[in-house]
Amino acid sequence: MATHKLSLMAGDGIGPEVIAEVTKLVRWIEARGLASFAIEEDLVGGAAYDDHGEAISDAAMERALASDAVMFGSVGGPKWDAVPYSKRPEAGLLRLRKDLGLFANLRPAICYPALADASSLKRELVDGLDLLIVRELTGGVYFGEPKEVVTLENGDKRAVDTQLYTTPEIDRIARVAFELAKLRGKKVASAEKRNVMKTGVLWHEVVSRIQKESYPDIQLEHVLADNCAMQLVRRPKQYDVIVTDNLFGDILSDVAAMLTGSLGMLPSASLGAEDPATGKRKAMYEPVHGSAPDIAGRGVANPIATIASFGMALKYSLGLSDLADSLDGAIADVLASGLRTADVATRGQNAVGTSEMGDAVIAAL
Amino acid sequence: MATHKLSLMAGDGIGPEVIAEVTKLVRWIEARGLASFAIEEDLVGGAAYDDHGEAISDAAMERALASDAVMFGSVGGPKWDAVPYSKRPEAGLLRLRKDLGLFANLRPAICYPALADASSLKRELVDGLDLLIVRELTGGVYFGEPKEVVTLENGDKRAVDTQLYTTPEIDRIARVAFELAKLRGKKVASAEKRNVMKTGVLWHEVVSRIQKESYPDIQLEHVLADNCAMQLVRRPKQYDVIVTDNLFGDILSDVAAMLTGSLGMLPSASLGAEDPATGKRKAMYEPVHGSAPDIAGRGVANPIATIASFGMALKYSLGLSDLADSLDGAIADVLASGLRTADVATRGQNAVGTSEMGDAVIAAL
Ligand SMILES: CC(C)[C@H](C(=O)O)[C@@H](O)C(=O)O
Ligand SMILES: CC(C)[C@H](C(=O)O)[C@@H](O)C(=O)O
Repeated sequence: MATHKLSLMAGDGIGPEVIAEVTKLVRWIEARGLASFAIEEDLVGGAAYDDHGEAISDAAMERALASDAVMFGSVGGPKWDAVPYSKRPEAGLLRLRKDLGLFANLRPAICYPALADASSLKRELVDGLDLLIVRELTGGVYFGEPKEVVTLENGDKRAVDTQLYTTPEIDRIARVAFELAKLRGKKVASAEKRNVMKTGVLWHEVVSRIQKESYPDIQLEHVLADNCAMQLVRRPKQYDVIVTDNLFGDILSDVAAMLTGSLGMLPSASLGAEDPATGKRKAMYEPVHGSAPDIAGRGVANPIATIASFGMALKYSLGLSDLADSLDGAIADVLASGLRTADVATRGQNAVGTSEMGDAVIAAL
Repeated sequence: MATHKLSLMAGDGIGPEVIAEVTKLVRWIEARGLASFAIEEDLVGGAAYDDHGEAISDAAMERALASDAVMFGSVGGPKWDAVPYSKRPEAGLLRLRKDLGLFANLRPAICYPALADASSLKRELVDGLDLLIVRELTGGVYFGEPKEVVTLENGDKRAVDTQLYTTPEIDRIARVAFELAKLRGKKVASAEKRNVMKTGVLWHEVVSRIQKESYPDIQLEHVLADNCAMQLVRRPKQYDVIVTDNLFGDILSDVAAMLTGSLGMLPSASLGAEDPATGKRKAMYEPVHGSAPDIAGRGVANPIATIASFGMALKYSLGLSDLADSLDGAIADVLASGLRTADVATRGQNAVGTSEMGDAVIAAL
């Protein structure tokens, strides 16, 4: 039985609470003799800054690089608002993405039928919604240089960020989207602002070419990012896979997640390129929701997004697909039984806490 | 009686159809002796490109610059997808914004109670919604340089857009937002991505300072742009005024507009700085909706957004506030009477066409 190297980075806010449920699951799996794990726990984000003055340490980065998968909680919070830019909590997350080469961020937006009423949209618009946002994660305005604030002679400041994309960066993320669409509804919508951005022009050109050359059977639609945001609100079920850049992906995936009413349930995977020698790829898994400082430490956060993210890790990084399927089944069973954390409980339903929800999923396994 | 110089730029798609209703209104006003107008009509967008190979001519720009207000329809459409970037329809709109110095784009998102059921959100979340997005319109990634696609030695391409903001650019748009908030709910939310963008860091810093120095009575909240998009979907009524940059404003205002269910009803104003000598400011008014090529030429477009935009022109640029109020009243009366264009008609309602709706508003005046 292979030992899986798992790096746990709980981070800030509700991060530690939801990652604790992963630890429970790992113990359960080991106790049943289904797999064995070598676990590393590291600080990231504000917690790391408080400990040693950086949002992630080089040693933690080393361990992340050596792991089969990173399970990430969440980072950030008002506590660190005054921290210097290069040491802010988010810098830890961005370094992990960049140094692990995690260019493909997969964000499914699924509406669990049992939860359709928790959506702010009318039920019929989201019931059964199942779309996948494929967000480019290591390029664009997040990492382009120059990225600086300079003080001018008259005392005013001038801030610059650089949105930058090259052909190969767009090529590889487009292929990820088309490959995933093959296994789903065979439809890709590519979102950019080619009417005002040169990166949008190149994005449109490359995605079109890849489709023509390599994926003639996948239906490709180009949509302006602002219109895509509108269409998500108007009629989200029109989409299957949406592929977009780092910044638009940040916003569109949040809109899509919120639409489902299941924000606390949505997992995500960030994947690197396949190593041709080993067939392996670096990977990090994290809930779509943030650190929710307002409810942190109260044991009420919904752990399902994180548990489902662990399910994605089992499947995509650890070769434990059967276990992943069982875990998804267990989540569905628990929801069907009516158990709810506060974020998705409707009037009259008794909400359970983080730990209780995690225990219920394990019991259902 | 002063003569008001009005520049009509109908543009593409449904632009000419909706601007035609403004012409009717102008004639009606003149016939009643309420005001007199000197009208210039110019091509812009794809229509201008088809005519003379540029998205707007220098002569048209001259006339726009000399006008008291520009009434803009809409530009763009698939017909011009292959047009060179610098001559694409949107270039005409961007030149108007830039050369007229229209840095402040006001986009109200109002949900007409009569139309709340046309929203994809649950009625209680949008009924009575009245928020105002103040979008910076002449800076950011829309205009920053370098903005280019270059071909590298190996044949790959590299595209760059530059997001750039200076202290004075943020200062003046923040003041517009705070001044408008004074007349409304006294709350401003400032949206940026300071956790990943240096322009966001500067934006946050300047907006905070202006509030502290000059608007201590206005409540200021800072929100990350991705979270703002989420919150708009979750609970839009929490906002009063949202101030944000050009690109985030593009997306957030489209989301907000779509939420209301009243997209075809929403006007917008783009304003320049006040000329200290004359007290006047350059201004352009346009519907929030786009050129809708799919329904163009069929006489079914909703003209209310454009008529309401003309109302804003009467008020803010032409000193005809009473007339503007009457026009708003007429629109409300027509809606209350049950008249609907196809975009907002619900099952069982007979939809009227563009011209019929325009006539009804005039009849109600
Ligand atoms: C925390 C932040 C840096 C991050 C981002 O902007 O990418 C978050 O919003 C996300 O979507 O994962
Ligand atoms: C047509 C386009 C250039 C424009 C923009 O991106 O600003 C439009 O989307 C808008 O919001 O007015």
